[in-house]
Amino acid sequence: MTFDPLAVTPLFEPRAPNFDERVRRNFDRQAAMASIGARIAALAPGAIALEMPYDQRFSQQHGFMHAGVVTTALDSACGYAAYSLMAANAEVLTVEFKTNFMAPAVGDRFVLRAEVLKPGRVVTVAEAKAYAFKEAQPPKLIAAMTATLMAVVDRPDVAP
Amino acid sequence: MTFDPLAVTPLFEPRAPNFDERVRRNFDRQAAMASIGARIAALAPGAIALEMPYDQRFSQQHGFMHAGVVTTALDSACGYAAYSLMAANAEVLTVEFKTNFMAPAVGDRFVLRAEVLKPGRVVTVAEAKAYAFKEAQPPKLIAAMTATLMAVVDRPDVAP
Amino acid sequence: MTFDPLAVTPLFEPRAPNFDERVRRNFDRQAAMASIGARIAALAPGAIALEMPYDQRFSQQHGFMHAGVVTTALDSACGYAAYSLMAANAEVLTVEFKTNFMAPAVGDRFVLRAEVLKPGRVVTVAEAKAYAFKEAQPPKLIAAMTATLMAVVDRPDVAP
Amino acid sequence: MTFDPLAVTPLFEPRAPNFDERVRRNFDRQAAMASIGARIAALAPGAIALEMPYDQRFSQQHGFMHAGVVTTALDSACGYAAYSLMAANAEVLTVEFKTNFMAPAVGDRFVLRAEVLKPGRVVTVAEAKAYAFKEAQPPKLIAAMTATLMAVVDRPDVAP
Repeated sequence: MTFDPLAVTPLFEPRAPNFDERVRRNFDRQAAMASIGARIAALAPGAIALEMPYDQRFSQQHGFMHAGVVTTALDSACGYAAYSLMAANAEVLTVEFKTNFMAPAVGDRFVLRAEVLKPGRVVTVAEAKAYAFKEAQPPKLIAAMTATLMAVVDRPDVAP
Repeated sequence: MTFDPLAVTPLFEPRAPNFDERVRRNFDRQAAMASIGARIAALAPGAIALEMPYDQRFSQQHGFMHAGVVTTALDSACGYAAYSLMAANAEVLTVEFKTNFMAPAVGDRFVLRAEVLKPGRVVTVAEAKAYAFKEAQPPKLIAAMTATLMAVVDRPDVAP
Repeated sequence: MTFDPLAVTPLFEPRAPNFDERVRRNFDRQAAMASIGARIAALAPGAIALEMPYDQRFSQQHGFMHAGVVTTALDSACGYAAYSLMAANAEVLTVEFKTNFMAPAVGDRFVLRAEVLKPGRVVTVAEAKAYAFKEAQPPKLIAAMTATLMAVVDRPDVAP
Repeated sequence: MTFDPLAVTPLFEPRAPNFDERVRRNFDRQAAMASIGARIAALAPGAIALEMPYDQRFSQQHGFMHAGVVTTALDSACGYAAYSLMAANAEVLTVEFKTNFMAPAVGDRFVLRAEVLKPGRVVTVAEAKAYAFKEAQPPKLIAAMTATLMAVVDRPDVAP
C-alpha cells in the first residue's frame, strides 16, 4: 500500500451541508494563496490537501522555499480543514500555530495535508504535514504543523 | 518614555566581527524578503528589526495580511538575530517556530523585532514580536514568535 | 540596575476588583502546585512570579528537574497571569503552550515569571520565563513559554 | 478495526542494537516518572506508549490532571521514542515542545503515545498524543505534542 498524500477521507460530520462550496469560495478570496500558487487538491469534512509549486521568488538564501511560505500554505490547510466543519455563519481565524522543519523545502512541488484533531464550537485543533515531491522520488516529509483555529461570529471586521 | 519598535540594542558578543555585513549580504539573498517587501530597519548583535508594507497580494480572506506572511518575516527576523551571533563559517536553518496571533494584521506597515534569548554553538533560541502601524496610531502588537535556529557547518546543500 | 525576577508590575486593568484574592484562592486548589512545592511570590494584574524548590523526586535521568515539571509551573504562571484579568464569573483553561529549554534545570530553586501579552474576553496570550537560582550566582534563564488561555463561563465541569 | 493506543510498531532502524534495554534502563532513572506513576507499556524503535494513572495529587483546580503533568509524560514519551533510535554513546535532551489540549484530563488512567517523525544524528522530531481512559468508554484524545529532541555526546553534565 502506497501512502498518497493527496488522498483525504471525511473525519467528522460538517455543521454546514455546503461545506465544500464554502471552503472553495473562501479559499479563492485568499490573495496569498494565489500569489504563492497554492490550490485545493482534495477536500473532505475535516481534511484537506493543498498543492503548490516550487517558486524561486519565495526562496530563502540557499534556494529552498522559505520556511515561512511553507508555513503560509500549512496554515491555510489547517484553517480550511477547521472551516470545513464550522457552522454556516462562522468565519475562521488562526489563534496560533507551530511548525517543525524536518528537511529543506527542496522539490518541484509541495503537498500540504491538514486534518482536524478536535473540532469545537469555538476552538478547533488541527495538524498538518508538508511533503516535497522531486521528480520520480517518493514524497518526502519536510514539515509538520499543529494549529489552533477559532470560529468567529458577528465580528464586523471579519465578515463572510 | 515611548517604546520604539525600531530601536535595537546589542545583546551578546558576536563571534564574527563583520556580523553586520554578513547579515545584510545573506538577507539580500532571500528572494522571499524582496517579494514581500521586507527590509532591515535596525541591526545589532543578537537583535534585529525588519519592516514590511501591507501588501494586498499577501492577504487572507478578510483583507488582513496572511498569518503565514507575517510569520515569514518573523522567521527571517529570528533567523538573522541568531545568525548575527554565529561563527563566520556557519549557516543558519530554522528548526521550528511557533507564532501566537493577538490581533488581525491590519495596518499600513509592520515591524518585526527579534531578539536572541540564548545563543548556542549549535542551537539558538530567539523570540520576536510583530507590530502593526496604522496612520498616527501607536504601534499595535499583533503576533509573537519563539523560534529555534541551528548553526550548520560544512553541509554541501547549505553553502554560504 | 539589577534585574529582579521576583518583581512584577501591573500590566492591564483587571476586570474583577478582587483579582488578588481570586488568584490566590484558585491557586490553593491546584494540588499539583502543592505537590511540586510551588508558591506565589508576587502578583499584579496580568503578571505573576512563582517560586519552587529543586526536588529530586521530579528529576529526569541526569538529575535536572524534569522539563515537564518546569513546564507545569510555567503553565500555572501563565494561567494565573491570565486569570488575574478575567471577569469574576470566568474560569481559566489552557488551550496550548510551547516551551523552549535553554539550559538544564539545575539549581536550588526556580522562579517562573509570566506576563499577559494580550488579554481577551475569550482568548488570552501570555508568555513566561523560568530562571534557576544556584547559591550566590545570578539567576539563569533556563526556559521560555508562550501560552494560550481561555476564559470559560457556565461550564458544569469547570465550576468555580 | 479498533484503534489500540497501546500498540506500537517499529518505525525506523535503531542505531544501537540494545535500544530496548537502553530505553528501559534510562527511563528507570527518571525519578519524575516514578513520582507520577508512569511506566512503559509498549516500545519499538522510534515509538513508545506510556501509561499513567489519574492522581489527585497532580490535579489542577477543577480536579483534572494538570496540563503540565500530562505534558511531563508526553515529553518523556517523545524523549524515549527519540532515544530509542540514537547511537549508543548519545544522551537525549529536550530542545522544545508544544502541547495542544483538546479536552480536560479526566479519566482513570492515561496513555501517552509518541512516534518519531524524523530521526537525526543531532536533532530528532517526534509527536505524541495523550488519551484518557474512563471505565468502559473508548479512549479519548485529550492532548497532542510535537517535540524537538537533541542527541548530546561527550557533555560532562549529561553522562550516561
